Amino acid sequence: MSLTTTLRTTTPFAVNGVTYRPPARPVVVICIDGCADEYLSVSIVKGRMPHVARLAGQGYRGLVRSALPSFTNVNNAAIVTGTPPRVTGICGNYFLDPATGKEVMTNSSKFLRARTILASAAEAGRKVAFITAKDKLRELFSVGLIEHGGIAFSAEKSDQVTLAEHGINDTVKLVGQAPPIYSADASLYVLRAGAALVAAGRSDFLYLSLTDYMQHKFAPEAAASLDFYEGINREVGRLLELGAVVGITADHGMNAKNTPDGKPNVIYLESELNVQFGGGFRVICPITDPYVVHHGALGSAVTVYVPKGADLDAVARWTLDREGVTEVHTRETAARKLELIPDMIGDLYVLSGRDVALGKTPGDHDLSQLEGGLRSHGGRYEEMVPMVLSEPLTDAYAAKAAGDPRNFHIFDFTCNGVRA
Amino acid sequence: MSLTTTLRTTTPFAVNGVTYRPPARPVVVICIDGCADEYLSVSIVKGRMPHVARLAGQGYRGLVRSALPSFTNVNNAAIVTGTPPRVTGICGNYFLDPATGKEVMTNSSKFLRARTILASAAEAGRKVAFITAKDKLRELFSVGLIEHGGIAFSAEKSDQVTLAEHGINDTVKLVGQAPPIYSADASLYVLRAGAALVAAGRSDFLYLSLTDYMQHKFAPEAAASLDFYEGINREVGRLLELGAVVGITADHGMNAKNTPDGKPNVIYLESELNVQFGGGFRVICPITDPYVVHHGALGSAVTVYVPKGADLDAVARWTLDREGVTEVHTRETAARKLELIPDMIGDLYVLSGRDVALGKTPGDHDLSQLEGGLRSHGGRYEEMVPMVLSEPLTDAYAAKAAGDPRNFHIFDFTCNGVRA
Repeated sequence: MSLTTTLRTTTPFAVNGVTYRPPARPVVVICIDGCADEYLSVSIVKGRMPHVARLAGQGYRGLVRSALPSFTNVNNAAIVTGTPPRVTGICGNYFLDPATGKEVMTNSSKFLRARTILASAAEAGRKVAFITAKDKLRELFSVGLIEHGGIAFSAEKSDQVTLAEHGINDTVKLVGQAPPIYSADASLYVLRAGAALVAAGRSDFLYLSLTDYMQHKFAPEAAASLDFYEGINREVGRLLELGAVVGITADHGMNAKNTPDGKPNVIYLESELNVQFGGGFRVICPITDPYVVHHGALGSAVTVYVPKGADLDAVARWTLDREGVTEVHTRETAARKLELIPDMIGDLYVLSGRDVALGKTPGDHDLSQLEGGLRSHGGRYEEMVPMVLSEPLTDAYAAKAAGDPRNFHIFDFTCNGVRA
Repeated sequence: MSLTTTLRTTTPFAVNGVTYRPPARPVVVICIDGCADEYLSVSIVKGRMPHVARLAGQGYRGLVRSALPSFTNVNNAAIVTGTPPRVTGICGNYFLDPATGKEVMTNSSKFLRARTILASAAEAGRKVAFITAKDKLRELFSVGLIEHGGIAFSAEKSDQVTLAEHGINDTVKLVGQAPPIYSADASLYVLRAGAALVAAGRSDFLYLSLTDYMQHKFAPEAAASLDFYEGINREVGRLLELGAVVGITADHGMNAKNTPDGKPNVIYLESELNVQFGGGFRVICPITDPYVVHHGALGSAVTVYVPKGADLDAVARWTLDREGVTEVHTRETAARKLELIPDMIGDLYVLSGRDVALGKTPGDHDLSQLEGGLRSHGGRYEEMVPMVLSEPLTDAYAAKAAGDPRNFHIFDFTCNGVRA
């Protein structure tokens, strides 16, 4: 713990309406992508996460509510800014851009409407590092970071870093070769890199964002998953040894979406609506991203653009009647209830049940890319995620945790809410 | 484990479409009333449930979906029959009986439309015991049980038992004086009684249903809650020592429903609708039961009877617009989506968010009875509950658990799904 005494106390900083007072110790926030609470529960009772179990026992373990739709970009944007999607501007991984009429991924900082906690922390003098498994998030959330001395790189492209763009140029020397993106190591690399930067005294305020490749592929009790979580546990233990205050959450949960015979359980909503109501429907799958092996762009939330002249109420009622559909909201209701921006979503917003995925048309989803059955997320059943903190909560934050805490309060809890 | 070798194998029996093949060991299904998964998670990482942690590590731990509305009678009925509310006929603790036009509690077996697994097991030769904390459930689920040699009694009235009505007349001698119903011991007594019956060789097929008094009163990390769960752990350990196959689930979860200043966060929907739409609305709170200290009849699901001539669509839209309301369904949609019986619910069915409760009018709910803030259940955010099994799943049931398993499959999992 000798490092902790050599860190200076940092200046408090305010961003997006919250003042952060990070403790004078390394602060490490980890987003375990796709970490449904069951992954921790099962790994802990199997004895595979002793450091995390101890951390949770001494600190805090509970559930927090993520932002809907429960997708990666939506929730990483919320986490790094401390604000819901209606403030971040990131309402999906993928959307129909009203400015251009084109379908685009949100993997560019030009879509991010809120300042990040990371940039503000760097500006306030913290040595900030943002490390992500998937390169898609790297540029998106490093706005304002590098110019204030911060570091931002991905495991995926950790061998392609420059001081100018990433604030670091020796990642391979520090952590090793870039791992394959479709691997457990893509996530473990991120944690190892974080610990290496802390150990070297080069970072003391970190956001480590993993990938859900393993969770899409394996249920919590699968041997490969248990090995993966044991790996996470090892790196978290290393961060604790280095004196870090650690906050862990997830961007979304994960559920199997298969029929009893193991085939993906999918409602192809665009196809069904076109058959039923005569064409012109356009379904957008906001889970869509460059990493196709994970999910084939099938998730538990889609948005529907309804053709002019269609009876919106009738379409909504018919859609809700589909077995496996749990909620159908109009644009205005969805924007209010799901904290989204109306002109970034379609006329209807549709959520599906625990074991059901929503798609566009069979031709739009390459199921051959799915290794094993479908596991995915995006809806209400993947909304609740864990929050684990390495230190006990203050009374004020214990009260906050007892209400309706959100995963995007994780920096607030980790910086302001613990007795560190 | 010597007991296990002396038990005979029982005849398989079929009830409500499922054939049960209970192992030739004591089979104990426990419903920890109001046991949100966080109660187990926190108690385990605090080191207070070592037997349950070991049991889960060697057997199975996961999440199952309860029946909506997530209330006690609804889910106990589902569990003891293995069927959803549309089959059991128990769609709330409380409802407007269409046959009489009167509001009544469902604490009578005359409302139960399905045969119980307990009665069938007794008829097939198992020595069945059903022990419940609250007496309200006792008569409801003991139909067909006593006449086949079974035992059924409550902790609440364990000093008022007769052979004719309860199949036992020495409960006080066996387990001690009846505990106060508003106590941790009301639940622990149930577990102690179950273990005593197993130890005495008087029961080998048990359903032990606790009360959620403690969960309504305490969050998972409260000292009193941790002590309570340590008590549960002790009795579960005793059952394991006795060679029992143990299956644990819950009827519903539990969430705090308070404003930031600690006051109950309630939408008085009948009052609001009468002001907005001119009177004649009737809201039924299906959580209502005789145990008023728990929740003041405030839960996260209510049903609304709309006056003749009102614009149902407008009422539904206005209700959904209320902050904290998450879902509003018409009778037909609610019946289909929530597995309910149309004529046992109102014109609209309303669910609220994680930290919000729904009520009738301020005068209908005695908040002075609430000790501390409000914690309650009934909606989607209290739907997911734990399932813990003492033995590993068979491959077939591992596949079933990976789909959308329900809490009312717990007898199926415990009897048919484990390698016992």
